Amino acid sequence: MQLGVCYYPEHWPESQWESDARRMAEMGIKRVRIAEFAWSRIEPEPGRYDWAWLDRAISTLGRHELEVVLGTPTASPPKWLVDAHPDILPVARDGSVMQFGSRRHYDISSPVYREHCVRIVDEMTRRYGTHPAVVAWQTDNEFGCHNTLPSYTQAALLRFRRWLARRYETIGVLNAAWGNVFWSMEYRSFDEIELPYRTPTDANPSHVLDYRRFQSDEVASFHALQADSIRRHSPERDVLHNFMGFYAAFDHYAFARHGLDVAAWDSYPVPRTEVLPLPEAEKHRWARTGHPDVSAFSHDLYRGVGNGRMWVMEQQAGPVNWAPWNPVPLPGMVRLWTWEAFAHGAELVSFFRWRQCPYAQEQMHSGLNTPDDELSPGGGEVVLVGRELRALGASASAVRSEPASVALLFDYEADWVIETQRHGADFDYQHVVFEWYSSLRELGLEVDIVSSRGDVSAYRLVLAPTLPILPDSLIEQIERGANHWVFGPRTGSKSETLAIVPQLPPGKLKTVLPARVVEVESLRPSIRPTLRIGEVEGAALRWREHVQPGVETEVTARFDDGLPALLQRGRVTYMTACFDRALLRAAIAKCVRDAGIDCAPLPEGLRLSRRGALRFAINYGDRSQSVPAPAGARFVLGGSVVGPIDVAAWIEEG
Amino acid sequence: MQLGVCYYPEHWPESQWESDARRMAEMGIKRVRIAEFAWSRIEPEPGRYDWAWLDRAISTLGRHELEVVLGTPTASPPKWLVDAHPDILPVARDGSVMQFGSRRHYDISSPVYREHCVRIVDEMTRRYGTHPAVVAWQTDNEFGCHNTLPSYTQAALLRFRRWLARRYETIGVLNAAWGNVFWSMEYRSFDEIELPYRTPTDANPSHVLDYRRFQSDEVASFHALQADSIRRHSPERDVLHNFMGFYAAFDHYAFARHGLDVAAWDSYPVPRTEVLPLPEAEKHRWARTGHPDVSAFSHDLYRGVGNGRMWVMEQQAGPVNWAPWNPVPLPGMVRLWTWEAFAHGAELVSFFRWRQCPYAQEQMHSGLNTPDDELSPGGGEVVLVGRELRALGASASAVRSEPASVALLFDYEADWVIETQRHGADFDYQHVVFEWYSSLRELGLEVDIVSSRGDVSAYRLVLAPTLPILPDSLIEQIERGANHWVFGPRTGSKSETLAIVPQLPPGKLKTVLPARVVEVESLRPSIRPTLRIGEVEGAALRWREHVQPGVETEVTARFDDGLPALLQRGRVTYMTACFDRALLRAAIAKCVRDAGIDCAPLPEGLRLSRRGALRFAINYGDRSQSVPAPAGARFVLGGSVVGPIDVAAWIEEG
Amino acid sequence: MQLGVCYYPEHWPESQWESDARRMAEMGIKRVRIAEFAWSRIEPEPGRYDWAWLDRAISTLGRHELEVVLGTPTASPPKWLVDAHPDILPVARDGSVMQFGSRRHYDISSPVYREHCVRIVDEMTRRYGTHPAVVAWQTDNEFGCHNTLPSYTQAALLRFRRWLARRYETIGVLNAAWGNVFWSMEYRSFDEIELPYRTPTDANPSHVLDYRRFQSDEVASFHALQADSIRRHSPERDVLHNFMGFYAAFDHYAFARHGLDVAAWDSYPVPRTEVLPLPEAEKHRWARTGHPDVSAFSHDLYRGVGNGRMWVMEQQAGPVNWAPWNPVPLPGMVRLWTWEAFAHGAELVSFFRWRQCPYAQEQMHSGLNTPDDELSPGGGEVVLVGRELRALGASASAVRSEPASVALLFDYEADWVIETQRHGADFDYQHVVFEWYSSLRELGLEVDIVSSRGDVSAYRLVLAPTLPILPDSLIEQIERGANHWVFGPRTGSKSETLAIVPQLPPGKLKTVLPARVVEVESLRPSIRPTLRIGEVEGAALRWREHVQPGVETEVTARFDDGLPALLQRGRVTYMTACFDRALLRAAIAKCVRDAGIDCAPLPEGLRLSRRGALRFAINYGDRSQSVPAPAGARFVLGGSVVGPIDVAAWIEEG
Repeated sequence: MQLGVCYYPEHWPESQWESDARRMAEMGIKRVRIAEFAWSRIEPEPGRYDWAWLDRAISTLGRHELEVVLGTPTASPPKWLVDAHPDILPVARDGSVMQFGSRRHYDISSPVYREHCVRIVDEMTRRYGTHPAVVAWQTDNEFGCHNTLPSYTQAALLRFRRWLARRYETIGVLNAAWGNVFWSMEYRSFDEIELPYRTPTDANPSHVLDYRRFQSDEVASFHALQADSIRRHSPERDVLHNFMGFYAAFDHYAFARHGLDVAAWDSYPVPRTEVLPLPEAEKHRWARTGHPDVSAFSHDLYRGVGNGRMWVMEQQAGPVNWAPWNPVPLPGMVRLWTWEAFAHGAELVSFFRWRQCPYAQEQMHSGLNTPDDELSPGGGEVVLVGRELRALGASASAVRSEPASVALLFDYEADWVIETQRHGADFDYQHVVFEWYSSLRELGLEVDIVSSRGDVSAYRLVLAPTLPILPDSLIEQIERGANHWVFGPRTGSKSETLAIVPQLPPGKLKTVLPARVVEVESLRPSIRPTLRIGEVEGAALRWREHVQPGVETEVTARFDDGLPALLQRGRVTYMTACFDRALLRAAIAKCVRDAGIDCAPLPEGLRLSRRGALRFAINYGDRSQSVPAPAGARFVLGGSVVGPIDVAAWIEEG
Repeated sequence: MQLGVCYYPEHWPESQWESDARRMAEMGIKRVRIAEFAWSRIEPEPGRYDWAWLDRAISTLGRHELEVVLGTPTASPPKWLVDAHPDILPVARDGSVMQFGSRRHYDISSPVYREHCVRIVDEMTRRYGTHPAVVAWQTDNEFGCHNTLPSYTQAALLRFRRWLARRYETIGVLNAAWGNVFWSMEYRSFDEIELPYRTPTDANPSHVLDYRRFQSDEVASFHALQADSIRRHSPERDVLHNFMGFYAAFDHYAFARHGLDVAAWDSYPVPRTEVLPLPEAEKHRWARTGHPDVSAFSHDLYRGVGNGRMWVMEQQAGPVNWAPWNPVPLPGMVRLWTWEAFAHGAELVSFFRWRQCPYAQEQMHSGLNTPDDELSPGGGEVVLVGRELRALGASASAVRSEPASVALLFDYEADWVIETQRHGADFDYQHVVFEWYSSLRELGLEVDIVSSRGDVSAYRLVLAPTLPILPDSLIEQIERGANHWVFGPRTGSKSETLAIVPQLPPGKLKTVLPARVVEVESLRPSIRPTLRIGEVEGAALRWREHVQPGVETEVTARFDDGLPALLQRGRVTYMTACFDRALLRAAIAKCVRDAGIDCAPLPEGLRLSRRGALRFAINYGDRSQSVPAPAGARFVLGGSVVGPIDVAAWIEEG
Repeated sequence: MQLGVCYYPEHWPESQWESDARRMAEMGIKRVRIAEFAWSRIEPEPGRYDWAWLDRAISTLGRHELEVVLGTPTASPPKWLVDAHPDILPVARDGSVMQFGSRRHYDISSPVYREHCVRIVDEMTRRYGTHPAVVAWQTDNEFGCHNTLPSYTQAALLRFRRWLARRYETIGVLNAAWGNVFWSMEYRSFDEIELPYRTPTDANPSHVLDYRRFQSDEVASFHALQADSIRRHSPERDVLHNFMGFYAAFDHYAFARHGLDVAAWDSYPVPRTEVLPLPEAEKHRWARTGHPDVSAFSHDLYRGVGNGRMWVMEQQAGPVNWAPWNPVPLPGMVRLWTWEAFAHGAELVSFFRWRQCPYAQEQMHSGLNTPDDELSPGGGEVVLVGRELRALGASASAVRSEPASVALLFDYEADWVIETQRHGADFDYQHVVFEWYSSLRELGLEVDIVSSRGDVSAYRLVLAPTLPILPDSLIEQIERGANHWVFGPRTGSKSETLAIVPQLPPGKLKTVLPARVVEVESLRPSIRPTLRIGEVEGAALRWREHVQPGVETEVTARFDDGLPALLQRGRVTYMTACFDRALLRAAIAKCVRDAGIDCAPLPEGLRLSRRGALRFAINYGDRSQSVPAPAGARFVLGGSVVGPIDVAAWIEEG
């Protein structure tokens, strides 16, 4: 693994560049991302390019053997471009046009903006595509950030109509697929279709879901235009985009098929924990560390999106500015997060940012250096990690190639389906998946997060916390394979167009687990039907299904009111409800053991991971813990007891 | 009483219609409502009508001796109509134009839309007006649903100005009536008047109240256009509209004078309980049953609106989709609600809907049948009710004609007055009335809800929880009659134009209860002045008045700080505050007994009702209860002990 | 001190004016404010003035030796003016145009509206400028009320661009000052600059801050246009504006330099307490009295704004209408507030309003008389105060001229800086200042609130709760003077253009207190780092800084986790965090004593003040308290024990 940093030479006097580059290299930093917001400096006036400063910046970095990740500047079109084409501005959900003055003020569907993006990227890639210091390209920045997806422009509408025409061919097919006879929503032609917003009550969920799909495709094609330019002019460089954590407004698996070599993502564990819909007690408990599974979840997700190649493009290195509250992380967290990324397979951890910028919107966002150019506390930790990494020698380039024993299925459409039709106000797809992930991690397991369209034959246990639209391929895999499967509620409940499946939920799953969901209910927080699973007493929350088990389907746990809670047929288990955390862990542990995998709950805050021959124990907790290393294990970090906010690593003989 | 069902033949393959009709008839269903959202099928293109499918649907139903309630399809104009006349779209409170894509996307004041509605209703009524299977007509669907009232279009403004000109004749009269000298809001002509919205601070409350009155009149005249067409072409058929529960944005009493034979309403006890401003503990307690007084309140209200004729046009028959959380009702509730409607005088209980629709906006709304065409749990209960109803024989057509002993006054303008000028953030007119209603029901009483403009001479006790604009007729009735009266706070406080009455509150009430309200206060939830009424200690909440009692007015209860809480003069009592539930019940019980009516608190969840010679005990609670039937009573449902979620009925000799 | 009243002759029949004036005079009222919303009566049609009624109203008042404060009517332009120039309407933050129908429906930057204002004020001042009964002029009414500042019109944008051009001269200077290179926000000319709103994420904070400054200047220049007219035509009359409590959207100190003789303000202690961001427990505790420091804070602030001259232009005299809940104040509060205003230096307390208006928006706002023209309870208390004031004789004209021992620095820009960049969701500038003020008052101290640009050499102790942009002049005063200083967190952290200061916080303060703020953190309410100051155990909340003390800077208190909490060097103390109330009081008490000032916590609700030779003990609490008068003191109000909701005053010999 390499260390990297995000750097903005245009923010600093040129006289400072040389010392910046030198100090980066001294710290063990190898890669530097630059230029992704620099359009107004690259093209200060329409058609007039100023490459000189960027040439010098890249040279300066190159002289210190730093490798450059070049960002395309399309996340922040300059004012002159907006003034020339005001219709490139995006439109918010309330119909208002967003304005210039921050970033992401563009419509992803605007034909004229797409032209300008291709133009500027062509210019950049032609100039730097084969520069020896340039090793990779990042397109744009954090697609969709600031709720700019979905957007609701006229350009999007026109392209959406064409997208629909391609998908459905005739308007009659679309009307039938969406069920437009309901409420007389039938269209006579694709040109009559509007954006699914600002309706007196809910728009047709099929309409909404297709618009989400269309928007997802728009993001991918917007990226592809740039990726194509890079491929043309910059051979053998990695193409990437910096994704966000817990962000699902477009399908990252599909995106990755449009010209992507590495899944890079931006990791901000502390503010992310503050803004996720976690219970208040958990937000409080992990306010200065981030929840122990929040970063790991995205690492494991993006490792899958990137087909094994994952970078942390931006790593929180101190307090940030964008959550409702922004505490200073506990000492040691920057080091811990870095090793955690390593343990989960990152090829690069790039810190955000080299030096805290004293002006503009992110001035309260810390960096490796303070504005007066001293190392920040986080910067000090990076120095230490750099040293530790060097000490690791060859092990530092270990890869995480062997699959985990357990696969957790992730599905972007599932997120859109649930968001379109939550049914219960607090049903959040990613939160449900996160609860399952966290339960597995608390049980000491490593997890691969895998697309629901992927091949999971390598895993002994496959879990799908909820999967409303169930792909045929999964049923085939269940039937063909020998592995165990666990499905959560709502699985199989919806057709491709967001209708209830004709055979009733769990739909296709009935093939392997005969059952019929007669009624479903969303539960207000005060209504918590109780039950027991093994030794653990607990309750359902949020969602429960009233299910009739079919032939050969066994009820392995029941609610106290008699309704089935767990259904099982052979290697397939179905949970009929969302459970509280303790009960969920008990239910999952049962399935894990059924699958022949050992597991045992870890102490609070302790997590285990493996990369190549290296085993890691990562301690988010506030007490020292013994690590499960065999006697005589060779430790390369720490020892057999790992302190609070610390990491131990040992070589696993094999 | 008859059973009915809401049915959408256009949603299903024609091959299914026959079996649907047969099974309806077998279940004891007699009436079927159809077509109220079918405009795009009736008139698929401008001016081209397709009646064939509807002819066949009606025939099919008719063949099984099912009676058809035909809906006019004006709640969902088709896309081509919106595209031809985009100005028929409604405008929301924030000034944004609502869009096509769900339902109710029309402006009730649009002249062109009114023309199209008359046209389509004329076509329908000419075709089916004398069809033997067609027994009734429903206009549109749930006027005002989805916050579409008030609406703020230019068409509404123009009609509002004319409405004002008719009401006030000269602009000087209007300026004086509204007090426009305040803040220089004076107009020089009716053409200067704007809609009362988007002002930097509150618009003039008189302006707002008149706009609410105007909007209420608009709804009535919009309905009247259709009712006139029905009268012309469909003699001897009932005209109705399906009103909503706890919805007061237009005056239903006034509406009923514009061509209405039956007050039909849509009953969804579980989600209604979730969305009403009830205390959290009550929402939790009744989450799976609905609050025991929520349905009964609307039954009793609409029985009055319909001059004794009340239908439940849509009855919840299982879990629904539109509340923040949507639990499955307890087993037995569908049957209980049906008998409760009967007990409160319903001529028809029509379930929503025949079969759960697997697509579009309401796919998570259950029906009597599941999408795969099996009886749902609720459907099973309806089969049982159908059988029980048949067993009842002649009693099933008993009417509820004799008045209750107690009348509760309801006033739509009071709702608008309070909403325009809450003064305290949690003062909600309907909630206050509901608390009084519920207290009376908890005391075992039957209640008629009566318009504040109505004749209440038949009642021994009349209660007005709050009545800011006090009609002269009430004072006359008090003076003429021998019955007892109870008034709540704010009564008599406002003039017809929402000004404080010149003689100060309680205004005209002073004639019969001399008193002077010197100051009023709204109370934050933490401020609860204490007092005792009889044995019950409690507190005021929300609202309190500082009142000087006048000559002959006795203070029958005082707050601990000395302020009068209850005032009484002869047959008239005045409550100076809102009380907590226990105290309110104590205060009301005192008045009930003063009026010579027996009462005693019922066990939790038990309610009593009477229809003709039948007496009902309805148990929403979770314990069995003895019913107050005389020894040897002849039970037609259940027996002398009524279990949880169950009903007992016996014949009252007399 | 004089008593006054707000009166609206245009609201009442002319036949009532004579008795109104007579009764005012009898009550001891001396000054009457009129006409500030009467534009539609003064100029009922474009260019046609009707002065006759106003002539008669002023004469009637004058005949009873009442002195008139004339209001300019510009807060409520009439409908005909809006119709002639619809572009004078203001634009809200969401981009929507606000409408006619209440008040403040004008854009402060509109050139055409400014012309009309000058015209109407010229007409008024020419007619009444030298009228013997007219003694003062109020411009407009409560600038900025109802969130009308900032406003976002096209007129404002054009003037803002010119304002920026004057401030920065070249666009390059502006780009550098704002750091527009960040996110490519660079402009090529001032004409490219937009309003800082409706951006996808935060606008540049420097942009926002300059817009706040511009808007503040606009208010001042809008007032100045009127003040100039008054100066021209009405010599020797006081010019004032009625400011609001806890309102900081424009710089009142700067405003006061644009033609202001008296800082008048509108005092509504009960609703103000309800709407301030106080903890729920405090809102409850003081719901019927107002928080004991809420009025005093504004008295002390505006006494400074007015250079010693302060009026209460509107004094709550009973329950009002505009808070979420509006309780009746406890008996005695109107008298208490009046004496409290006197004790804090008011020259006038003018009650709002003479008689409760029965119609329009403020009909639920009480006055000295009820709508039926009886004295209200508050009116009765004013009669008593009038009598007490007369009994005071010469002492009633005492002035509060000697400075307090303690100065608290207030800074309007600090409010805008914090609001632009809260960093923690609950960091509210005025609330923080209020907590410090309240702590000082609880310690028995009198406080002068002083501009951060002012001369504070007269004070033994100067406190700045937080002062992000630290004026050079303060550092000079610290160095030159001998007084003690206390600074709260964030002080010195920002440059004039809202960037982090190059030397890092506390910036310039380092000159006198060497220290370096390495990191800052905002704290969610559940995260409260603990510490002890003296005997008091407590916690930080909201905000904490990680500070390295410099040479000679002593750490006088530390958090339990070791971080410095209090830093001190000689006469200068720095608090690194916000503390809970008990801890804050302990920290401040330490500084007070260090400065050689005696202090001791007062009983709950008791406060002390001094005016001339008069000392006051004001008891907001519910228990009697001994007052700290010397034995044998001569009491002019009450005696040595002051009851609940009561006042004692004695002559201080000296």
